[in-house]
Amino acid sequence: MQRALSVTRAQNFPDWYQAIVKEADLAEASPTRGCMIIKAWGYGIWELIQQEMDRRIKATGHDNYYFPLLIPMGFIAKEAEHVDGFAKEMAVVTHHRLKNIDGELKPDPEAELTEPMIIRPTSETIIGDAFSRWITSYRDLPVLLNQWANVMRWEMRTRLFLRTAEFLWQEGHTAHASKDEAMDETFLALELYRAFSEEWLAMPVIAGEKPAHERFPGADNTFSIEAMMQDGKALQAGTSHYLGTHFAEAQDIRFTDKDGERKLAHTTSWGTSTRMIGGVIMTHGDDDGLRTPPTIAPKQIVLIPILRDKPEDEAVIAYAKALGEALRGLTAFGLPVRAHVDLKPGKSADKRWDWVRRGAPLILEIGPRDATNGQVSFMRRDALREGDKLKSHAMARDEFVAQAPALLAEIQRAVFAEAHARLHGNIRTDITSYHDLAAYFGSDEDGGGFKGWVRAPWCRPAGAALDAVVEKLKALKLTIRNAPLDQPATFGPCLFTGQPGVEEILIARAY
Amino acid sequence: MQRALSVTRAQNFPDWYQAIVKEADLAEASPTRGCMIIKAWGYGIWELIQQEMDRRIKATGHDNYYFPLLIPMGFIAKEAEHVDGFAKEMAVVTHHRLKNIDGELKPDPEAELTEPMIIRPTSETIIGDAFSRWITSYRDLPVLLNQWANVMRWEMRTRLFLRTAEFLWQEGHTAHASKDEAMDETFLALELYRAFSEEWLAMPVIAGEKPAHERFPGADNTFSIEAMMQDGKALQAGTSHYLGTHFAEAQDIRFTDKDGERKLAHTTSWGTSTRMIGGVIMTHGDDDGLRTPPTIAPKQIVLIPILRDKPEDEAVIAYAKALGEALRGLTAFGLPVRAHVDLKPGKSADKRWDWVRRGAPLILEIGPRDATNGQVSFMRRDALREGDKLKSHAMARDEFVAQAPALLAEIQRAVFAEAHARLHGNIRTDITSYHDLAAYFGSDEDGGGFKGWVRAPWCRPAGAALDAVVEKLKALKLTIRNAPLDQPATFGPCLFTGQPGVEEILIARAY
Repeated sequence: MQRALSVTRAQNFPDWYQAIVKEADLAEASPTRGCMIIKAWGYGIWELIQQEMDRRIKATGHDNYYFPLLIPMGFIAKEAEHVDGFAKEMAVVTHHRLKNIDGELKPDPEAELTEPMIIRPTSETIIGDAFSRWITSYRDLPVLLNQWANVMRWEMRTRLFLRTAEFLWQEGHTAHASKDEAMDETFLALELYRAFSEEWLAMPVIAGEKPAHERFPGADNTFSIEAMMQDGKALQAGTSHYLGTHFAEAQDIRFTDKDGERKLAHTTSWGTSTRMIGGVIMTHGDDDGLRTPPTIAPKQIVLIPILRDKPEDEAVIAYAKALGEALRGLTAFGLPVRAHVDLKPGKSADKRWDWVRRGAPLILEIGPRDATNGQVSFMRRDALREGDKLKSHAMARDEFVAQAPALLAEIQRAVFAEAHARLHGNIRTDITSYHDLAAYFGSDEDGGGFKGWVRAPWCRPAGAALDAVVEKLKALKLTIRNAPLDQPATFGPCLFTGQPGVEEILIARAY
Repeated sequence: MQRALSVTRAQNFPDWYQAIVKEADLAEASPTRGCMIIKAWGYGIWELIQQEMDRRIKATGHDNYYFPLLIPMGFIAKEAEHVDGFAKEMAVVTHHRLKNIDGELKPDPEAELTEPMIIRPTSETIIGDAFSRWITSYRDLPVLLNQWANVMRWEMRTRLFLRTAEFLWQEGHTAHASKDEAMDETFLALELYRAFSEEWLAMPVIAGEKPAHERFPGADNTFSIEAMMQDGKALQAGTSHYLGTHFAEAQDIRFTDKDGERKLAHTTSWGTSTRMIGGVIMTHGDDDGLRTPPTIAPKQIVLIPILRDKPEDEAVIAYAKALGEALRGLTAFGLPVRAHVDLKPGKSADKRWDWVRRGAPLILEIGPRDATNGQVSFMRRDALREGDKLKSHAMARDEFVAQAPALLAEIQRAVFAEAHARLHGNIRTDITSYHDLAAYFGSDEDGGGFKGWVRAPWCRPAGAALDAVVEKLKALKLTIRNAPLDQPATFGPCLFTGQPGVEEILIARAY
């Protein structure tokens, strides 16, 4: 069977991922090592993610700010764990001028910075510094802010959207008078991410706490949402951190409390990024391209007039334009329907496949007969084929207009339901020993076959005992994703040691 | 008379500017040299600027993309004029890791980049490189794209919003098959900026062409919009460039035309930035703070309940909340009205002055009597005072709700009309010689008093003759802003040489 992408998921999942990113006009590699160019369809998806995420962040009382891209090196050094965690992968600015030296452009030796600066890998330190100036009294708390920005981490092995040197994200940063309030905020952000991922990206996730060795550098607790990709691997799609008073101590964020005492503020930070688009691709893509959830599809309904350089073309174009106009007057997911009439030069069959690959949720091909009979023929991108063939639906024009918002909502539900069944149908809870774990995952070490996740109790070891567990998992290319928030009342024995379990964790291969 | 800001415009205009930026919660300096922290009210204004600018850019057929922050040094070197124009002020990344060396954090000598990278000062070169890969045939043209991004130019003397090392902007980049099409695009962007500035920022401008020595490095023609600040100085608020085939030659952007010939594409670029916020401040600010045009006010109507820790507080809060809700259900400028009930702890008088300084267009103080009588008392921020006193208007509650969108529109018109009168009433056309020019501007060389602009014919000299003119103007701290698009049929003699004039130019002091 001919598919719209050059590689199928079954043939080679990583190659399929590369193919869809390229062929669906999402992004491409750039001449800047490790950095990507986000193209029109990919950036359009990002804008719709931003718009709704921003709405939810503001609705929970956070204001947007903007802080500098460059951070003086000394700031990074202040929080010891933080610098260990990030120092290995920063872009360092050392000069502020280029100069033509003997015919070659070079950093001007006379323009070397007294103190090098780093491009923000994250902004705790520069924002903490502002907090220390802004916060003097309990009346100044809480401070609730968010930033949309680009950040940079010098990654050696990159994959578009999933791991790039530069990426786009939002980072929430807050300061509170007490641990309780800060923990409430940490959970508020985590729940915001869970709901957003499921409701807006149609990407079901499991929210939970990261084990100690996977914490954000400088955090007391790190929580994440984890989604299951179509190859069974986990993708961390958002994190929320309770930073305790570590950054407050390092940066002197103190306030005079109601009782007149000077106290350290408790801070949090939380972030989601363009990585989510990678998650959307591997959750909803198929062998014909992306199936973009209608909520984040830059064009939800695409109308392709079938033109034959004949006099009736005019009527077809007029019919398509009027239909597009009528659809744009409707509302779906609280926003005007994004309907687009594709009038670019080119063959209509090529256009159809372009929109199939990009994953426009509803694709209409409009011919002279449709215009004459007042009807439409459309494809649902979520259920494109019947057997080998494309499946086309016919409907009276006015009925289609009346049904369009409901159809989009139905597609959103359908792609979510499919992903929900995949996630919740592929978490094994019957593996109770490392031996069984090795037998399950070890049978296919290079990750070619589908393997879901394992949920099992453990004794939450620390120090050398934890290191030993991490090493054992590493041998199977596995990681602990998180300890889901939703825990049972009692636990079986630890998968690794046989000692009494204290919580259940998710074990999986991961991106 | 007591004013809400610590400095008045008349006392010291530059100090007043600094005071308003700080006291209206717009921005502040950061520990990163030359970079600013944009605070909640300032960033809220920027978001509203972005939203509408983005809508207009998309409505004219441009898609948003995102390109890398870092540009390989070799790219910058490709276009000779471009490198001369920008090489002096770039942040250069030379290392990708920090290392603890003898107890001190330093760039790791083993992590030096083979080729240094620069933080984009603008993106012609990296986008041009993509164009060269994307464009092969006339069918691929035009390419019409835009990017929202941060950029960096190593400025030595910085002023918040007006000139900072890092700033936020949009940059449009397009490629066309012919000069005519590219010139049409250049003018389309210029007109978009003019209309946006006047209709959305209520900031009247004059659009025209920059003289040769003020062109963008690598451009054939540069056009600008110029606004007049309250001290008479000009502010360039947006530029649009026809780049000819310079970048196409440097980066091999070629296409096969309909006639089968390989041709160079013609490119354009155009940009506006957070600098516009500086323009808004100096156009609409007064001695009580900013008067934010309603179109870009993050809160258009602010309701301040006057609370006295008494039982009737509850009714006041309920009344304010219901009123806020009713106002948010209305539409102004095509968007839901942004009404905000300020329930933060604190004295209502302090809150009133905070909102006066920020410039919320309508400020309501709501007391128990208002709640009982079903009325409101409001201040219009555009006409805050009558003599020395604050001017308060009373209105029945339902009438206020009915009138609110019209009141916002009226305020928008009023601040525009005031700025329009200032610009068009302060362009002198009666100065016909350098001697007169020197007499007018030379009488107050340090720029303390208000001096408007001069519009006069010139002979558009080139080379050494142009240099001489530039030097003469520099002695008076003057610059040529642009040659307005709107030119008369005939010209008087050149202001500088007495030779026949060929166009009229605007001469002014400038930011």
